[in-house]
Amino acid sequence: MNTQTRKATALAFPNIALIKYWGNRDQSLRLPSNDSLSFNLGDLRTTTTVEFDPLLTRDEVSIDGYKVSAQAYERVAHHLDRLADYSDIAEIDCGERRDMSECRPRARVISNNTFPMGVGIASSASGFAALTLAACAALGIKKSESELSGLARLGSGSACRSVPGGFVAWHDGYAVSIAPPAHWPLMDVIAVVSRAHKAVGSTEGHAMADNSPLQAARLSDTQRRIRQCEEAIANTNFTLLAEVIEQDALLMHGVIMTSQPSVLYWEPATLSVMRAVRELREDGLPVAFSIDAGPNVHCICEAHALKQVKQAIRQIEGVLEVIESGVGGPATVIPHQS
Amino acid sequence: MNTQTRKATALAFPNIALIKYWGNRDQSLRLPSNDSLSFNLGDLRTTTTVEFDPLLTRDEVSIDGYKVSAQAYERVAHHLDRLADYSDIAEIDCGERRDMSECRPRARVISNNTFPMGVGIASSASGFAALTLAACAALGIKKSESELSGLARLGSGSACRSVPGGFVAWHDGYAVSIAPPAHWPLMDVIAVVSRAHKAVGSTEGHAMADNSPLQAARLSDTQRRIRQCEEAIANTNFTLLAEVIEQDALLMHGVIMTSQPSVLYWEPATLSVMRAVRELREDGLPVAFSIDAGPNVHCICEAHALKQVKQAIRQIEGVLEVIESGVGGPATVIPHQS
Repeated sequence: MNTQTRKATALAFPNIALIKYWGNRDQSLRLPSNDSLSFNLGDLRTTTTVEFDPLLTRDEVSIDGYKVSAQAYERVAHHLDRLADYSDIAEIDCGERRDMSECRPRARVISNNTFPMGVGIASSASGFAALTLAACAALGIKKSESELSGLARLGSGSACRSVPGGFVAWHDGYAVSIAPPAHWPLMDVIAVVSRAHKAVGSTEGHAMADNSPLQAARLSDTQRRIRQCEEAIANTNFTLLAEVIEQDALLMHGVIMTSQPSVLYWEPATLSVMRAVRELREDGLPVAFSIDAGPNVHCICEAHALKQVKQAIRQIEGVLEVIESGVGGPATVIPHQS
Repeated sequence: MNTQTRKATALAFPNIALIKYWGNRDQSLRLPSNDSLSFNLGDLRTTTTVEFDPLLTRDEVSIDGYKVSAQAYERVAHHLDRLADYSDIAEIDCGERRDMSECRPRARVISNNTFPMGVGIASSASGFAALTLAACAALGIKKSESELSGLARLGSGSACRSVPGGFVAWHDGYAVSIAPPAHWPLMDVIAVVSRAHKAVGSTEGHAMADNSPLQAARLSDTQRRIRQCEEAIANTNFTLLAEVIEQDALLMHGVIMTSQPSVLYWEPATLSVMRAVRELREDGLPVAFSIDAGPNVHCICEAHALKQVKQAIRQIEGVLEVIESGVGGPATVIPHQS
């Protein structure tokens, strides 16, 4: 029996979608119903080390020092099965059998985030991006960035957008970078209005999207929004960006609220922040809101407006915390010191 | 010159739409893009006296003792022109000329509401219903209920629903009663969270509806909702009613928020009340929310739940006032004591 361990570490950033992903055309493959656009949040980091150890009898998965839930554990283990299937483990450890869930060596997965969980920052995106890169590196799997993006997608849809750097477009199977971080120094000022666990998780939410009478209309309008957002990014036109990202977030929440069963992700303070952002913009500040499937509000602004935006948002009743980030690069494998 | 005055008084109730009217297929005729359903709010009253007086040189219009704005004045005067055209004034006062805006006798219009203005109760509905009935009675115009409903519609779309009694369906040109008030003793508990004047009025809002990528989808789903709501009313099935009226209100607000320009009618406390209503329903109380084009929340409940609903809603932070009403009858002409 081969007792050598195989280990690698990767770094990835969460991302904020400017044009949202909501609904899958293939649920199990996480192939999206619509294209989306995002940028990576370079000041928020997930670092994940994966060590395949033939002496382990089961996977060990910890995030921020805690063992994960059974559900999260299964999702990670299943993702490792999937990745191992691309490696030489098939021959070395499994012989003729190729059921990775039974024969691959187990792994120690240690993941750490520099940002809190449950504040509307999708740690599953950075988490599965980093896990994918680290596991592939540990197993000696050579894949292109697009292929790695596609593999990350299988773990968590939006994780595919955390693999390439800067401004990123996700079309069908994988995501690609459309502009580097330095192209437009935008900031995301995240107004945390609730730390409560979401009543309906994203995976479940995606599955409900088609129950809304509005989802088909939202989908058929996607390419217009994608084009407007791409044009806004290409020309660093904040006015154009503000209009389309707010509309896009509201389209998604229109779908979510009218799904059956209906979900209300917003809290009273969500509305307070949305209104404050619009007032700031009317006063001339380049700031616009975006809201993921949750109550917290991402206030996207140009870097020169950061101080004023933070100051205004912090004062709003119901805002528990403000987290900020600029645009980040691609997910990367971190060389181990030996 | 004929100096005889012609005078009549009418009473009408505002109404709350269970399936909302939003968008016109003909803006100037106020022909709606979709059918709607409502019930009259019988504990809230508008009483309007119209007196055509040949000695007046211009119309006089007061609501609750105050002269109305120039805009409201024009809308009332134009409606009186329209109605006068159905009367014998054409022959008596106008001779060959039939431009009523120039030749009809001017009127004294005195309207009084038992409910406050600007709290999300459509006084334009009860106002134009009462104005239409009073003016027609004063001018001796004999019309059926459906015809009066259609005339009221020309003044304010939803006014057509305040002409027939009880539960009312508006299809295209006019509205008809589908069940009398006693059929189902529902209550409307209106949570007033703002008394501010709306940033975007309903007439302007209707004109913007088609700018939303979601309006066409909302419209094409209308008949399903109408059927579900009619079934809920016919069988007094509150569970069915709750599902469809909340979804319908959220569909309308989905359209409103994603119109260009986007309008956010909701206040933070709007969300608080919506969430509270859902919690009360989960606890077994028959209550559901509806929201017109504004921030205030109509909590529709069965009469036996009224006390508990009121008690819960009153305690919510941001709720300034609670107004209640049961189901009301048709608009009626009130005989003058002589």
